[in-house]
Amino acid sequence: MYLCFDIGGTRIKGGVLDEKGRIFARKEVDTHVYSGVQGIVQQLKKMETEWIAENPVWKDQIKGIGIGVPGFVEKGKVWEAVNLGWRDEPLTEHVQKFFTLPVFLLNDANAAALGELWLGGGRGLRHLLCVTVGTGIGAGVIVDGTLHLGKYGMAGEIGHFQIGIETGSLCSCGNKGCLETFASATAIAAQGLEVARQGTSKKLSQVLLENGRIESRDVVEAAEMGDGMAVKILQEAGEKLGRALGNIFLVLAPERILIGGGVSRAGTLLLSPLRKGFHEMMPNIVKKEPIVFLAELGNDAGMVGLAKYIEMNLI
Amino acid sequence: MYLCFDIGGTRIKGGVLDEKGRIFARKEVDTHVYSGVQGIVQQLKKMETEWIAENPVWKDQIKGIGIGVPGFVEKGKVWEAVNLGWRDEPLTEHVQKFFTLPVFLLNDANAAALGELWLGGGRGLRHLLCVTVGTGIGAGVIVDGTLHLGKYGMAGEIGHFQIGIETGSLCSCGNKGCLETFASATAIAAQGLEVARQGTSKKLSQVLLENGRIESRDVVEAAEMGDGMAVKILQEAGEKLGRALGNIFLVLAPERILIGGGVSRAGTLLLSPLRKGFHEMMPNIVKKEPIVFLAELGNDAGMVGLAKYIEMNLI
Repeated sequence: MYLCFDIGGTRIKGGVLDEKGRIFARKEVDTHVYSGVQGIVQQLKKMETEWIAENPVWKDQIKGIGIGVPGFVEKGKVWEAVNLGWRDEPLTEHVQKFFTLPVFLLNDANAAALGELWLGGGRGLRHLLCVTVGTGIGAGVIVDGTLHLGKYGMAGEIGHFQIGIETGSLCSCGNKGCLETFASATAIAAQGLEVARQGTSKKLSQVLLENGRIESRDVVEAAEMGDGMAVKILQEAGEKLGRALGNIFLVLAPERILIGGGVSRAGTLLLSPLRKGFHEMMPNIVKKEPIVFLAELGNDAGMVGLAKYIEMNLI
Repeated sequence: MYLCFDIGGTRIKGGVLDEKGRIFARKEVDTHVYSGVQGIVQQLKKMETEWIAENPVWKDQIKGIGIGVPGFVEKGKVWEAVNLGWRDEPLTEHVQKFFTLPVFLLNDANAAALGELWLGGGRGLRHLLCVTVGTGIGAGVIVDGTLHLGKYGMAGEIGHFQIGIETGSLCSCGNKGCLETFASATAIAAQGLEVARQGTSKKLSQVLLENGRIESRDVVEAAEMGDGMAVKILQEAGEKLGRALGNIFLVLAPERILIGGGVSRAGTLLLSPLRKGFHEMMPNIVKKEPIVFLAELGNDAGMVGLAKYIEMNLI
């Protein structure tokens, strides 16, 4: 059995999985970003303690820990995870103070890509791009059936792709115009908040009154109920994402591009404008064929991929 | 020995090479684009005939033909080579009417990348992007020491990368805003022509009067002689190319990016603004280290790569 933790900018998804990717237990908690790396490691420890209390036999069966991190990961270190505020953190070292198991780190989007390749929408493919649209935007690059990490483990860091619009808001990386300032859950929530305040979306104004804030899922729900402004927000985010993915297709030419992460729950409301943006800029040959699809494993993709990664690397 | 032909939009570079990449003979001719695929195959045949006339012993020593094509190549076919006006051309079939040797096709930028990886600026690297800036712009993608071709052989087709400037001129692919409409030899020549006509560059106006046209090499030469407008043209092309390559780095994270092709002869005049554009949009971690360099094999990269490709594939 493996402990798999997918640390997102908003939520930590944890699970106990076996070597076939089956999930025997799962928990989800808010990420205590404010408590720093030590606090987050303690959140992981707490989950493990609870699982073992529920099922003591797991104590001996668990053989490794996999951790997905939203940032650049290399050799047990997190170079930078802007949404967590980490820089140059020896995460494996921190984890090994609390756990006596081998630790495997992976960028969260890379973990999701491995999961989708193994048991999701990328089964049987050789070349795959798996995009995670959540608090930030990242992607896992599979070339020839293998995860391509690249220099500094930075391959697939497409959230900071510059889409040429210099008027965008400042990104957490310090630049302007990054893709994730237009199409991430964070960006969609911010735009939802704006229309809620302006009063141009009755539905979102209502949510703001009730909850005191707007999340990306509120925008998706409003769009599903036919709210015009919410639909427009998803449409614009989808088109921008689609055009960026069109550029990325010209670099990598994957057989398929999968869209996962929280925002992908918007389904067709996101996918239709995304495909429009993507195909508009493609050479004719690619126009014939659908390349972009929704991911299949939802929230579990990262954990499943981590299980595969531990399985591959544990001797 | 191998016959290697690197067909560009402007010139065909041909050579007789051995399995170590040594060049024993070379010829360069203008590409007779107007004469179609049949005419170009006859240009190749003519070169071979001349070489064998000069050195009859080669007749039995030549074991394969490699052809680099500026377009999408897959399974003996050229799907599309816009700068040659070819679409869906069974090139291998055409070639085999004139030659009784095994034929190997490769995208020209991929051939150059293989050459640089083998004997040039990419020696010993695992992950490499090799960009060819000529009539068009293309790139070869090396992942884990292997050429990554991708779906439809389209990996590295970065000439049609949209850099977000919708005001650009129409590209031969039918879109606007493609990278090669800003930074290719063609784009640089067009901008050179403009300033020559406007009279804002004395040097280029003079060339226009003398030759009746401006080529990219004229702009490079004028810039080398200190012509302000020519320097500015290269600067803007370099910066745009640099920003596009910054985006591409976020997808692939190669250990090194090499710049080859005719325009790279501009050297520092192109490389300095290119590096500026590249590093401006990079996360801090990449700012420390130079990633972009000039390619080393010049005009020979494609031929050398083709020799390697034949060597790898000839049984």
